[in-house]
Amino acid sequence: MNDTTQDTSQDPLVIFTPSGKRGRVPSGTTVLAAARQLGVDLDSVCGGRGVCSKCQVQPSFGDHSKHGISANPDALTEFNAVEERYDRVRGLKPGRRLGCQACVTGDVVLDVPAESQVHKQVVRKAATTRHIEMDVATRLYYVEVAEADMHDPAGDWERTQMALANSWSINGVTLPFNMLAQLQNALLDGKNAVTLALHTARAGQTKVIGIWAGFAEPNLFGLAVDLGSTTIAAHLTDLISGDVKASGGVMNPQIRFGEDLMSRVSYAMMNESGAADMTAAVRDAMNTLAQDLAREAGISVTDIYETVFVMNPVMHHLLLGLDPIPLGQAPFALALSSSLDVPAQEIGLNFAPNAQVYILPLIAGHVGADAAAVALSEAPQTVDPLTLIVDVGTNAEIILGNKTRVLACSSPTGPAFEGAQISSGQRAAPGAIERVEIDLETKEPRFKVIGCDLWSTDPEFAVQTATTGVTGICGSGIIEAVAEMRMAGLLDASGLIGSAEATGTARCRPTGRTHAYLLFDGSADGGSVVEVTQGDIRAIQLAKSALYAGARLLMDEFGTDTVDRVVLAGAFGAHISPKHAMVLGMIPDCPLEHVTSAGNAAGTGAQIALLNVAARREVETLVQQITKVETAIEPRFQEHFVEANGIPHATAPFSGLRAIVPLPDPSFNTGGGDGTRGRRRGRRG
Amino acid sequence: MNDTTQDTSQDPLVIFTPSGKRGRVPSGTTVLAAARQLGVDLDSVCGGRGVCSKCQVQPSFGDHSKHGISANPDALTEFNAVEERYDRVRGLKPGRRLGCQACVTGDVVLDVPAESQVHKQVVRKAATTRHIEMDVATRLYYVEVAEADMHDPAGDWERTQMALANSWSINGVTLPFNMLAQLQNALLDGKNAVTLALHTARAGQTKVIGIWAGFAEPNLFGLAVDLGSTTIAAHLTDLISGDVKASGGVMNPQIRFGEDLMSRVSYAMMNESGAADMTAAVRDAMNTLAQDLAREAGISVTDIYETVFVMNPVMHHLLLGLDPIPLGQAPFALALSSSLDVPAQEIGLNFAPNAQVYILPLIAGHVGADAAAVALSEAPQTVDPLTLIVDVGTNAEIILGNKTRVLACSSPTGPAFEGAQISSGQRAAPGAIERVEIDLETKEPRFKVIGCDLWSTDPEFAVQTATTGVTGICGSGIIEAVAEMRMAGLLDASGLIGSAEATGTARCRPTGRTHAYLLFDGSADGGSVVEVTQGDIRAIQLAKSALYAGARLLMDEFGTDTVDRVVLAGAFGAHISPKHAMVLGMIPDCPLEHVTSAGNAAGTGAQIALLNVAARREVETLVQQITKVETAIEPRFQEHFVEANGIPHATAPFSGLRAIVPLPDPSFNTGGGDGTRGRRRGRRG
Repeated sequence: MNDTTQDTSQDPLVIFTPSGKRGRVPSGTTVLAAARQLGVDLDSVCGGRGVCSKCQVQPSFGDHSKHGISANPDALTEFNAVEERYDRVRGLKPGRRLGCQACVTGDVVLDVPAESQVHKQVVRKAATTRHIEMDVATRLYYVEVAEADMHDPAGDWERTQMALANSWSINGVTLPFNMLAQLQNALLDGKNAVTLALHTARAGQTKVIGIWAGFAEPNLFGLAVDLGSTTIAAHLTDLISGDVKASGGVMNPQIRFGEDLMSRVSYAMMNESGAADMTAAVRDAMNTLAQDLAREAGISVTDIYETVFVMNPVMHHLLLGLDPIPLGQAPFALALSSSLDVPAQEIGLNFAPNAQVYILPLIAGHVGADAAAVALSEAPQTVDPLTLIVDVGTNAEIILGNKTRVLACSSPTGPAFEGAQISSGQRAAPGAIERVEIDLETKEPRFKVIGCDLWSTDPEFAVQTATTGVTGICGSGIIEAVAEMRMAGLLDASGLIGSAEATGTARCRPTGRTHAYLLFDGSADGGSVVEVTQGDIRAIQLAKSALYAGARLLMDEFGTDTVDRVVLAGAFGAHISPKHAMVLGMIPDCPLEHVTSAGNAAGTGAQIALLNVAARREVETLVQQITKVETAIEPRFQEHFVEANGIPHATAPFSGLRAIVPLPDPSFNTGGGDGTRGRRRGRRG
Repeated sequence: MNDTTQDTSQDPLVIFTPSGKRGRVPSGTTVLAAARQLGVDLDSVCGGRGVCSKCQVQPSFGDHSKHGISANPDALTEFNAVEERYDRVRGLKPGRRLGCQACVTGDVVLDVPAESQVHKQVVRKAATTRHIEMDVATRLYYVEVAEADMHDPAGDWERTQMALANSWSINGVTLPFNMLAQLQNALLDGKNAVTLALHTARAGQTKVIGIWAGFAEPNLFGLAVDLGSTTIAAHLTDLISGDVKASGGVMNPQIRFGEDLMSRVSYAMMNESGAADMTAAVRDAMNTLAQDLAREAGISVTDIYETVFVMNPVMHHLLLGLDPIPLGQAPFALALSSSLDVPAQEIGLNFAPNAQVYILPLIAGHVGADAAAVALSEAPQTVDPLTLIVDVGTNAEIILGNKTRVLACSSPTGPAFEGAQISSGQRAAPGAIERVEIDLETKEPRFKVIGCDLWSTDPEFAVQTATTGVTGICGSGIIEAVAEMRMAGLLDASGLIGSAEATGTARCRPTGRTHAYLLFDGSADGGSVVEVTQGDIRAIQLAKSALYAGARLLMDEFGTDTVDRVVLAGAFGAHISPKHAMVLGMIPDCPLEHVTSAGNAAGTGAQIALLNVAARREVETLVQQITKVETAIEPRFQEHFVEANGIPHATAPFSGLRAIVPLPDPSFNTGGGDGTRGRRRGRRG
């Protein structure tokens, strides 16, 4: 091919679409060989033996003025016996050719359909549509192995290695010892031909993780898991097509040992087998979830060859069977901070016998692989605008950065944002109030519940919610309720709820020495009463102060008082209204149109790492470069936390916000002992 | 050190013995640093922290005319606090210094005692005394790991890796996942100091296989195993001192499934779980043997960190849980021919949790790792004389070669040489006849039995053998008996036993249509009768013909009719008399003084591979270079086999032998239907 003394100008010109790659090849070259020569992404599992059909192309004949050629129908050799047999037995779409059989004899345009591309684009239908280039760690290879020869007595495995080197130029492959007997049997059954699933954890580390006799087209699935303190969410993906075949989530059963991370660490400290019990519980849950998803996708769990996990450090240690206690106190010593490649069975996952697990690196003792996954998904290091990413969960992961620098921390927001510790709070489920509006004049509320699109003021509302009822208020609902109360002047900047007299609405009812705002009263029909109490306001204030203080600490470290963009991540982030979040002071002041939701960015990061090995190296490098900030030992965190207690904030001006929303400034402090800060704010107002 | 602009001629001159390495070092250099600088083999586990005492040296003061220096008593700094503490707590031999504490201040001669050398010489007390240079794969390293730092949140393992790199310049170490929790605990218990056992299977493949909190001096043992069809023999060796602490053997329990290799392969063919049953049996036996040896040595089996196996291909496949059936017929396809590094637990061995196993490479489908071990031990590729090595067992491994070329084959001799298939045969045990002499004149025999040093003609014999009695004849006994019968003219060259009339002794008694020679008659006292029957002669002829034919085939391949040396290997080889073996025609004609016994050369090879990792690479290379000859499919093997039926041989002259022993040439063929070959020989005689 490199012989420059030969005149190749009369050779046929081949143009591949959609890549646009083009070049001349000697007449008679197979399409597959031409693709390889020109660096075109054309798949092949059987190595050109006409059995796998992965190398299908669609030739285009006729005039191609765009490409400057005219393709005659005889620009490819005729259907040969191999293609005819393949078409007869398994069917070939009209116009399609097998790239390993059809030979180029004239100028031609050849389209490589997506299913014939190894590095195809996969579209993630998430809150934000995202393209992932397929570049999986596990791929199938068909090899025909030399027969045993008693004069050159290389073993089955040695001859298989030679075949991989000869047919695929793949060297240095290792075989897990427990697969040797299987290889022996497969070669026997397959008459010296086998299909291998090779897993390349990183360059030069390729091992066999699946073996089938002869040419086989096994299911090859991967699981991307976002293992949260509260919820385990997973996507089951076909590693060949890139299609997500099933998605689902289960509650993390560790909740019974403790609601939040620190209570689980305490459980481990107080109970001898505490950590082991939590490890067993989460592994069980993972196996059950995988079985459920496999059933939904119509496959077996033993078809799962790869799993990617993202999770916070405590979940990480508990899944891996490591002691979480050191994570409960400074210096928050991790047992392992790097990414991990480990056989699934070593962490108790009953998938394919040699299935592999990849776990993203942890950023710091409090900032986990979930935050790393968010960084991978959102890629703040690639943009110019200074971007603040908050992943709101029981623990909030906070990332701040741009092309120049990226910082990260975590902040213990607690479960209030998820409806816990709220008087009428509940998890997001049908019947839960998720949106709230309060009329600025009448102070009357309207709301929506999960499972119904109508406002509560709609005449049809009662009928449409008859089955679910109005059962309580979830995380996004309480945030909107508190923010709306603040805008309607029912709540002062210190977080005090005013009395009926002070606010002018009977919905502000006394409850002991404080007041509560009545959102819904179904008691006449035997239903629930949903109100926002002073205690609820305090719980939300604590949570949002922790979140804001973490973000503010990163801004200090970055040396800025403002951010250009805010991204709300996390399953919960998708439901938060940016305006209400900002009125509450969860996030710094920022033009509202620059506040976006990224959906479950951690889960997206897991999916990216599952489908693209280069992304694994990318996140490993990124994590090394991130500046880690430890909120728990930073004195300024406490200062920021106290100042963030105000709604939206005690000292930060939030002038951008004030320009677009009403933020009346009453003071409801009666000297009754609630909050000196409210008193100070009151005086200033 | 490389600064050539500095004048170092006034620096103290240090001379290390026994290596003789010498050089000048700056005054104040520690002895350990000086040793490293001069390339002297001085051990250290703690890296110079004064805790391990492995770097002890013995300074010699006074005039050293041999070395051309005079050493003053102040040539080393005085005992420091660390040495004083060490001496007080653990005791230091008189005159000894810790190399990491004592600093050189003047010319001095320093002796490195054997226990301070990593690469010390170990003497094997075998049939042949042999020196092995210690260069083990598993070594201890003490490291002090940086404390966890929340601003640079590297995990326990990452900080341990850094410590290994900084203190020991060891990089790229891997940690088996199942040891991560143990590392976490050890760092906690050891206040960030741990002792690690690192195993380097081959260059660049180092992993942690043992972890202890703080500085520790754990037992570190290795097992070298010769896993034979009949006997499993093992040596338990201290991997630090190189001392063999226990040796022993057990019967291979697979015998109950079949006496020889082919009957075990048949068992696997005929019984669904046959191979699995044999695998379980041999693994059980290995665990029991290891427990027995560990008990004898006063250690635990969990102190065994390395095991080396040598064995034939069928034993190899059965130990590894591979299907042995392909080894039963051409092309004798091996599942794996290369050497194997595998965790002990993956082959069912309950040693240290992460103990490693090394299995020597197989040479061919019929020529195993035991033959490779013999080649490693005897090293025919390093000598000029053409050397024939026969390892006699149920299967004989035969190696022929010299510096120019090495060939190998195996030959199915069957168990006759071990006393099986012999009318009065028995395994070598007290009471078994092991030596025989027959008077050339009187044709009367005398013999010795195992357990008594007297000849049977000694008046004390009956008393000394009263407890054991004379129970039968073992392998070496039957070989000597047949050879003696041949020399005494009781047996003709075709292998026929003569009648009493023809031989002139009433001990040749008729048994049906043939005769038997009465060796011992204890029937009057209710004891045994031991005779050599015509059937016994035929069994020995078959066995020795197979052995000779194999050797002859290799000689053909080499292009020679004579060999310079013969080495008899195998536990059995140690007991064979070279003269009798040659009279029998087991081995080709060769000056008797060039026939030697190597003892259990396969076991020695296993021990070498256990103690010296370079030897593993050596045998791997050697096996690649050996020319494999497959006796089972070589037509000339049958020809050689038939011709070797004669005693000593039908056509080979054995003129060297004839010059030193009587080989009368009677013919006892009576035309009664025994052996056409006997008839032909008779006519020629």
